[in-house]
Amino acid sequence: MTRQMHLTVQLISGYGLEPAAWRWPGIDPASFINADVFVKAAQTAERGRFDALFLADTPVLSTDVATAPPQQALEPIVTLTAVARETERIGLVATSSTTLNHPFTVARQFRALDLVSQGRAGWNAVTTSHPGALLNYGTGVPSRGERYERAHEFIAAVMALWGSWEDDALIMDKEAGRFADASRVTPVGLAGRHVASRGPLGLPPSEQGQPVVFQAGGGLNGLRLAGRFANAVYNNPFDIPSGVEHAAAVAQAASTYGRSPDHMTVFNGIITSVASTRKEALERREQLDALGDLETKVAYLGQQIGVPLSIEDIDKPVHQSLLENARANPADPRSPLALELAGEGLTVRRILAHGTMNYHPVALGTPDEVADILQRWHEAGVGKGFNINPDATDGLEHFVDEVIPILQERGLFRREYAGTTLRDHLGIPRQNGLPAGYGQHVGAAS
Amino acid sequence: MTRQMHLTVQLISGYGLEPAAWRWPGIDPASFINADVFVKAAQTAERGRFDALFLADTPVLSTDVATAPPQQALEPIVTLTAVARETERIGLVATSSTTLNHPFTVARQFRALDLVSQGRAGWNAVTTSHPGALLNYGTGVPSRGERYERAHEFIAAVMALWGSWEDDALIMDKEAGRFADASRVTPVGLAGRHVASRGPLGLPPSEQGQPVVFQAGGGLNGLRLAGRFANAVYNNPFDIPSGVEHAAAVAQAASTYGRSPDHMTVFNGIITSVASTRKEALERREQLDALGDLETKVAYLGQQIGVPLSIEDIDKPVHQSLLENARANPADPRSPLALELAGEGLTVRRILAHGTMNYHPVALGTPDEVADILQRWHEAGVGKGFNINPDATDGLEHFVDEVIPILQERGLFRREYAGTTLRDHLGIPRQNGLPAGYGQHVGAAS
Repeated sequence: MTRQMHLTVQLISGYGLEPAAWRWPGIDPASFINADVFVKAAQTAERGRFDALFLADTPVLSTDVATAPPQQALEPIVTLTAVARETERIGLVATSSTTLNHPFTVARQFRALDLVSQGRAGWNAVTTSHPGALLNYGTGVPSRGERYERAHEFIAAVMALWGSWEDDALIMDKEAGRFADASRVTPVGLAGRHVASRGPLGLPPSEQGQPVVFQAGGGLNGLRLAGRFANAVYNNPFDIPSGVEHAAAVAQAASTYGRSPDHMTVFNGIITSVASTRKEALERREQLDALGDLETKVAYLGQQIGVPLSIEDIDKPVHQSLLENARANPADPRSPLALELAGEGLTVRRILAHGTMNYHPVALGTPDEVADILQRWHEAGVGKGFNINPDATDGLEHFVDEVIPILQERGLFRREYAGTTLRDHLGIPRQNGLPAGYGQHVGAAS
Repeated sequence: MTRQMHLTVQLISGYGLEPAAWRWPGIDPASFINADVFVKAAQTAERGRFDALFLADTPVLSTDVATAPPQQALEPIVTLTAVARETERIGLVATSSTTLNHPFTVARQFRALDLVSQGRAGWNAVTTSHPGALLNYGTGVPSRGERYERAHEFIAAVMALWGSWEDDALIMDKEAGRFADASRVTPVGLAGRHVASRGPLGLPPSEQGQPVVFQAGGGLNGLRLAGRFANAVYNNPFDIPSGVEHAAAVAQAASTYGRSPDHMTVFNGIITSVASTRKEALERREQLDALGDLETKVAYLGQQIGVPLSIEDIDKPVHQSLLENARANPADPRSPLALELAGEGLTVRRILAHGTMNYHPVALGTPDEVADILQRWHEAGVGKGFNINPDATDGLEHFVDEVIPILQERGLFRREYAGTTLRDHLGIPRQNGLPAGYGQHVGAAS
């Protein structure tokens, strides 16, 4: 069982990861406001036995809408509730900011989602540093220290509110007129420097107790939050060694706070482009690139390898005279790959197709090749999980129909869900309230 | 058409209005966490051509859970999203507080609900003064002035955010790669004393433009908010004259701010208990009462009419010797009715069954009698709308199957929906952004 990996899927407004995916054949250009698209994708992912659908979220319009749809537009609680009603097993994970919200609202909305989905909700608790998102909430950019101090208080308050309605409090004896054991429904009375809430919540635990807490965002502060509170972490390494390093740090952080590293899954962001042949996968990516802003991409590739490049160079290899002076830009960890591909004599278009400026590593090729890549990362010890970002949303079907069966055959992925809740999928125990032993480790926080 | 009334329905956690309704035969005692109950009720109300399902909301656990379920527990955005996916026409209205939330969240969640429901959302914008709800949000009780000043800024900010994405901004031309007209998607940059938001929102208008704004809560401050921003108002009069008075004040408030009184509907809260005979309706109410805390009710009836009463008196008329000194308690507008019924020699149990201490007037009796009551109020000019509160949720089916056809026959209620959006049902025009002429009347606010 421990050999098996965990998978979530992310769709970015329903189109898929590539910015121009909204123009891809078969993709509904109105996906960003169409809940049906998310429901259908979640049903596909559920057929593939994914652990969860994941909606990242930064509440700001950061794309240029002249040429690209808003990202993460349809509000996640609304989207996931729609999905919850029309799926049965797949987990439902959304980001909600500890900087911009109030714990009572987050505790209540995620618990409601957890109840409506019979125990399938997850909350990715992140701090917000995006200036535009902060301005939408009428505030400036808090310091990193402030953000994480608030995040700590915030997550503790949410978990305490969840725990304010204990297991087995519900009685619901109509004959006797006894609704609940009131001694098991009690205020939390938390008051910190940043947030306070009295409680109790008006909602009892779900089938999994409380939603699974995910953490994302790096640095020591992030690790402390993960170690103290989370059962899952989103990470975006560009290569295996940094993935392994982060997974080890997450496990260590859990141990530091007296929690089991076995109850931690690190989900590594991966983009997938699957086709019948490796060549077709590259061509698919070239076609997606061609629908977007190639000019900017070519210019940026030039910066990655330290040579001047423009759109006219798109179908030629980087000229030998330029290659002699090329060097990988140390500010961008993806630059060595770009330089290597240029050195192999690929055209600029083909270099780009390899994903040299994508936010995540690109697993491209045949279903077997994509499975190989995931297996290599997995067996290296990157933390058991992947957050799959299909290049365009139709890629999810290819992944489910072609890659998943290979992973299953290799014993790397479940054939059936073992249980019904997200906690079941992740192999973590029921929890309702703060982690056991939370009080003992409070000192370690500061 | 102007003869017709408008109807919303409210279920109070899915059980119905009476506190003991959770114990009523056929009612699921877990309704407060069961979205299916709300979906089914909404489908029933849609069959009856109701304008909307309404979820009032105060985010606090205010019942004694030993004997009664939490009220308004399942979070409204989650509940209404579930309902939206499984209904087609009925409006979806929820309360959300201007005191406890941030405009960006409210603007985004209600617009998402409006999009997912194809233009059926409504937002009941209220201030919060409940100390427990405020403590859940870590804050004390603001003054009435502060609350309403913030409410004003808050609603303006939400409407401005809705308007930040103009009509016809969406292009979605996949061939040309033009997603939207960026000149029609612009920041709002609102900054007041209480709330600020830059925007723009990442979501375009729905089929009705933006959600319908409802207002609730009395006094001059409430009227000003209604007059300036709302198209619908919730009011809870105990008798026709105060209902008429409030409806006139609402119409006047709209005119004051240059808005049409014809585009205002006042929904008056009414409890319904429908049965084959008036006697059966009273017996139904007695049975519901018997499942609750009769002791407290009897004692309170004593206070209403100024005589000592206890549970032992329940099946007797109020004794003649007591009646001689009885007087209606001036602090409770329902007291004259209680005194009148006592004077008629009804037993204490039967007096209570008339709803002498209910939060709304009780329309009880045969379908014809209930229709008569609604017609009488309606024709007196209470503002065209009723918020129907069935005593227990099964009462909604009686109302839809038995009362609605009578209202239709009398020409007092629609037989079919005329349109698809909540604005269509209410007969109000499309709106996206602040009301026309908003700027001209800002001075009138203070």
